[in-house]
Amino acid sequence: MSINQATVKYADLPTALDVVSAAGVQSIGLWREPVAEVGLQQAAALVADSGLRVSSLCRGGFFTAVEGPERRASIDENRRAIHETATLAAAGADGSAAVLVLVAGGLPAGSTDLRGARERMRDAIAELEPEARASGVTLALEPLHPMYAADRAVLSTLGQALDIADQFPVESVGVVVDTFHIWWDPQVLEQIARAGASGRIASYQVCDWVTPLPQDVLLARGMMGDGHIDFAALTRAVNDAGYRGDVEVEIFNQAIWDADPASVVARTVRAFADHVPLGDVPLGDVPLGDVAL
Amino acid sequence: MSINQATVKYADLPTALDVVSAAGVQSIGLWREPVAEVGLQQAAALVADSGLRVSSLCRGGFFTAVEGPERRASIDENRRAIHETATLAAAGADGSAAVLVLVAGGLPAGSTDLRGARERMRDAIAELEPEARASGVTLALEPLHPMYAADRAVLSTLGQALDIADQFPVESVGVVVDTFHIWWDPQVLEQIARAGASGRIASYQVCDWVTPLPQDVLLARGMMGDGHIDFAALTRAVNDAGYRGDVEVEIFNQAIWDADPASVVARTVRAFADHVPLGDVPLGDVPLGDVAL
Repeated sequence: MSINQATVKYADLPTALDVVSAAGVQSIGLWREPVAEVGLQQAAALVADSGLRVSSLCRGGFFTAVEGPERRASIDENRRAIHETATLAAAGADGSAAVLVLVAGGLPAGSTDLRGARERMRDAIAELEPEARASGVTLALEPLHPMYAADRAVLSTLGQALDIADQFPVESVGVVVDTFHIWWDPQVLEQIARAGASGRIASYQVCDWVTPLPQDVLLARGMMGDGHIDFAALTRAVNDAGYRGDVEVEIFNQAIWDADPASVVARTVRAFADHVPLGDVPLGDVPLGDVAL
Repeated sequence: MSINQATVKYADLPTALDVVSAAGVQSIGLWREPVAEVGLQQAAALVADSGLRVSSLCRGGFFTAVEGPERRASIDENRRAIHETATLAAAGADGSAAVLVLVAGGLPAGSTDLRGARERMRDAIAELEPEARASGVTLALEPLHPMYAADRAVLSTLGQALDIADQFPVESVGVVVDTFHIWWDPQVLEQIARAGASGRIASYQVCDWVTPLPQDVLLARGMMGDGHIDFAALTRAVNDAGYRGDVEVEIFNQAIWDADPASVVARTVRAFADHVPLGDVPLGDVPLGDVAL
């Protein structure tokens, strides 16, 4: 299990590392902004001191713009993100993953050319892949729920992500399996199996789909057990597909963000144990002290 | 072109028929509730007097409940809807379509068993299909956008709808192609072609995807041209797939509902002409008086 830093969004990096570590969780997913606040070298030193694994860095991407200065700036930003990913993973404990999560970006303003935006996303990955490979970083393509297709991510299904990933070496391009984004997909189980068979699962993230959706649908990610997702079926599929990396809990939710970070982590550990079975052993059946696998 | 009655939701049936007819539009998609307000026989008489075609009746479905009184009530309700569809289509002008739009329904309260809900949806269609066939009615399975999968419709993609429809006779089970629900799908063009090749397109509905989403995401359906959908590409695909029926404009939008029905219809006719090309002739190039095809 890993706590994605976004789950305790208002905590700075030292606080996030402290509360995760203090809860007995052994891994953390980092975000670029709080890393930038302290600076990359200082962040790496803090991570090394924490003894935690790094399970991913969020996030790069947003590269659907047409050719021009905006697109060049985006590509350059992603190069920096690749470098940060390699640095932070190297600072983390053994078992850290040099995984950079990529969110595609939406349609350019005023455009309805979804196919063109998707082609430019693919082209950006092609441009960045050699640098990722040279840095030992895996670019993790994250399909986002189709409700974000217009304004956030033109990458909408696991199958679509795999169609792109399969064009590149397996060590440098993978996919994110995130329950919130893909639980509804009639093809989800076969696509998870496909992702596992080709070694493409770079990250497995969990959180629940809660209804009604909040006014800002970006904040709809809820605590496991509060919503409609069958974590047993999806986690079994990811496990059966051969994935053995950290399982990241990533929650965007105003009420959770407003709570004390340590209590959020404690609640997250408990919800994870109750709802996310790993292997044949439902974590709900093991003592909480053993949860941080 | 057809105006779906939901676009002028607050108009009663006589008013809706009047404003659609007065705008020179020759077809209307009806809803069960305003029909029930005047009674089925009176509604049929009004439709006959209007001279309009009926392009569909919205809607049946909501049959994901487990076996028991709730499920039986839902099946019975759908039988009544089949009868209403046949009656209203018979009252409409030549070219009317006896098409009943079906929305699957969401997960039962507290359930995370999406697969089970989907199986029960399929079983309900199997139960209703003989009655639809005997009545000359086509059950039109409408995949809804995946953001509704938990609480409104476990039928989420056109491919999934076709996988079910293909299990039944083509004259009694088809699918709805609705731009709002499927525009994001990476497989949309091939699935539209598949639907056309098997003669399964029972209805084509258009409206736009507008961002940001409103607080009630059921009211996110916007006027063509106000959002992110490429109507040219989708309409061309539907046309190339061989569909020659009415194109229904169905908009759920508080601002549009609050406007005067006649002005909404006029605005809809104009937006349709500007954004929805039929065949090789963009409607924007033909006089508005010829729009009501």
